[in-house]
Amino acid sequence: MFSTRLDRARAAMTESGVDVLLLSVGSDLPYFCGYEAMPLERITMLVVPRDGDATLVIPELEVPRVVERPDVFSIHGWGETDDPIAVIAGLAGSASNAAVGDHMWAGFLVDLTAALSSTGFRRASTITGPIRSVKEVDEIERLRSAGAAVDRIAERLQGGEIELVGRTEAEVSAELSRQILDEGHDRVNFAIVAAGENASSPHHHAGSRVIRTGEGVLCDFGGTMVGTDGVGYCSDITRCVWVGDKPDREFLEAYAVLHEAQAASVRASVVGTPAQDIDRVGREKIAAAGFGSYFVHRTGHGIGVEAHEDPYIVEGNEHQLVAGNAFSIEPGIYVPGRWGMRLEDIVVATVDGPDPLNTVDHHLAVIEP
Amino acid sequence: MFSTRLDRARAAMTESGVDVLLLSVGSDLPYFCGYEAMPLERITMLVVPRDGDATLVIPELEVPRVVERPDVFSIHGWGETDDPIAVIAGLAGSASNAAVGDHMWAGFLVDLTAALSSTGFRRASTITGPIRSVKEVDEIERLRSAGAAVDRIAERLQGGEIELVGRTEAEVSAELSRQILDEGHDRVNFAIVAAGENASSPHHHAGSRVIRTGEGVLCDFGGTMVGTDGVGYCSDITRCVWVGDKPDREFLEAYAVLHEAQAASVRASVVGTPAQDIDRVGREKIAAAGFGSYFVHRTGHGIGVEAHEDPYIVEGNEHQLVAGNAFSIEPGIYVPGRWGMRLEDIVVATVDGPDPLNTVDHHLAVIEP
Repeated sequence: MFSTRLDRARAAMTESGVDVLLLSVGSDLPYFCGYEAMPLERITMLVVPRDGDATLVIPELEVPRVVERPDVFSIHGWGETDDPIAVIAGLAGSASNAAVGDHMWAGFLVDLTAALSSTGFRRASTITGPIRSVKEVDEIERLRSAGAAVDRIAERLQGGEIELVGRTEAEVSAELSRQILDEGHDRVNFAIVAAGENASSPHHHAGSRVIRTGEGVLCDFGGTMVGTDGVGYCSDITRCVWVGDKPDREFLEAYAVLHEAQAASVRASVVGTPAQDIDRVGREKIAAAGFGSYFVHRTGHGIGVEAHEDPYIVEGNEHQLVAGNAFSIEPGIYVPGRWGMRLEDIVVATVDGPDPLNTVDHHLAVIEP
Repeated sequence: MFSTRLDRARAAMTESGVDVLLLSVGSDLPYFCGYEAMPLERITMLVVPRDGDATLVIPELEVPRVVERPDVFSIHGWGETDDPIAVIAGLAGSASNAAVGDHMWAGFLVDLTAALSSTGFRRASTITGPIRSVKEVDEIERLRSAGAAVDRIAERLQGGEIELVGRTEAEVSAELSRQILDEGHDRVNFAIVAAGENASSPHHHAGSRVIRTGEGVLCDFGGTMVGTDGVGYCSDITRCVWVGDKPDREFLEAYAVLHEAQAASVRASVVGTPAQDIDRVGREKIAAAGFGSYFVHRTGHGIGVEAHEDPYIVEGNEHQLVAGNAFSIEPGIYVPGRWGMRLEDIVVATVDGPDPLNTVDHHLAVIEP
């Protein structure tokens, strides 16, 4: 699997004139070799020359963490007083063009730029993004498992099994985090809980605000499930609930618009459709209902080994969906200082049409306290 | 506080000829302005011109997350179809020299390099590292609180209150993680649990290995406590325990050497002493006992808003300790495939001598199952 993926990367490097691919912290590294770098000041780097063998340059004390895959890469451990930048520069040789992992620490790129003064650097995602964005069959099944796991949590949330009223957002966020782990994820990526007016901040940080009856609560959560091969796949779902016996009429009406817009974008997620058209379909419905200025973000993002990756479902992205693209569809309506709502599923584009990985109820759940 | 810190940064910029400081993902940003950037593909950047006001360039949808501090920075929110790199480049103006946050994503540095073609880039840590490494009084107290929190967990570990035998490393790691949060941290940075032969891998990833009687278990854990000002401080401790009624003699003897070496490095942590000398003092004791080749890493790292920062306690670092430096002292002995051990405290250098922030028992705890 890893060898096949590296072959694809080398083909893309040939096509775009990249001599060496340099992968460090981030999701490219596990995707291509099954090892995830520790995000520390000691550099780890997979050096992939277009026409040579790959080498994993790694701190000596982290070598025992690596599952050896001699058919994919050899290992070069560096000691505490060695200069790993010199080692990497040596392996990169006289590359004219290098592609560096987008999430590598910039400090290391500063060092590499000094060590490889005649090399031009570009983002590795120009090579790896298109490859990673087309999921293999096994990858889709792993995304489906992760999706089913958060669906089970959302179902408990909608069923009133997760206590809300009288607890702080932070407490509910902690409970969602525990359930994400209990449901088989290896790490929690986020667990946004935003009550009432706080939900008008799309990326609200769950805090000390106590949840009360008579308000909406937005929950957006997900994690990463790591397989035995060292590669992890992400989940990501958003559901809103109303706490109290009688939802506010304005909230209900807006939710109906959101629900319809989200479903329309899911239906539009057909192979061949430009990503921006999927965004437009839902956005037009929200705008038609008068909420256009309150939908302040793109419709979605790709998902896979990373929580956000290609393809982005956003105005300006003309990428035409191909079978195997996996992405979120998550429109929202946010009225500053008053309330907010978002509805999100992960969807895979297939030759048979859109395949949603989240199927838990899309209606506004009303939870009587 | 933030204004004072930015004044220090501007003074350092003047001294080293840096025209603009660019801070994104990482710990510099909260240290200097109380806001922590989300590690996502939408860029957040604090632009600090040497002679002008600071601006926080941030995705529009994350603006509500920011605690406004008009005396420290103004806010520029960018919309989903804007070009934030152009905004940042505009604010950076005609900078000849820019210092970029070491942990910023390299992909953004690639973009900035293209947008600011006549600007030279260096690591922001050349400016921020020396400032952050000298802790203010309040920072030391926050580190002390975080240290006391993990001391309480270590005490329960040593007292046999955390079940070990029959559980997997991963289960114990999860319990330590829960306790880190329960003790007041806002996030877990790591919870290494390594049993028997696994402890010979210094950065072992806790896995499915079941802990048995008659072996050593290494636990290295820590987290971050975030204050109301948005700035977080880290804890980091390592203790080893022996599970079973009778420790292996070789293990006991090695532990005595380690204990003595660690204490010697702590005692050597005196203002004015070069960092490398602190490393040498402990290393020599371990080498004298014949374990020199099994101590495969540096003695320690600075700690503060980040788990690893300046000063590093390593051969080659001639930095002479100043009052307010805070760092780990954590020698280890690792016999590949057999066993491993490490003993770690956080220590602050003060005018009155070394001030250890971890005071829980340093002896090898023997836990009868």
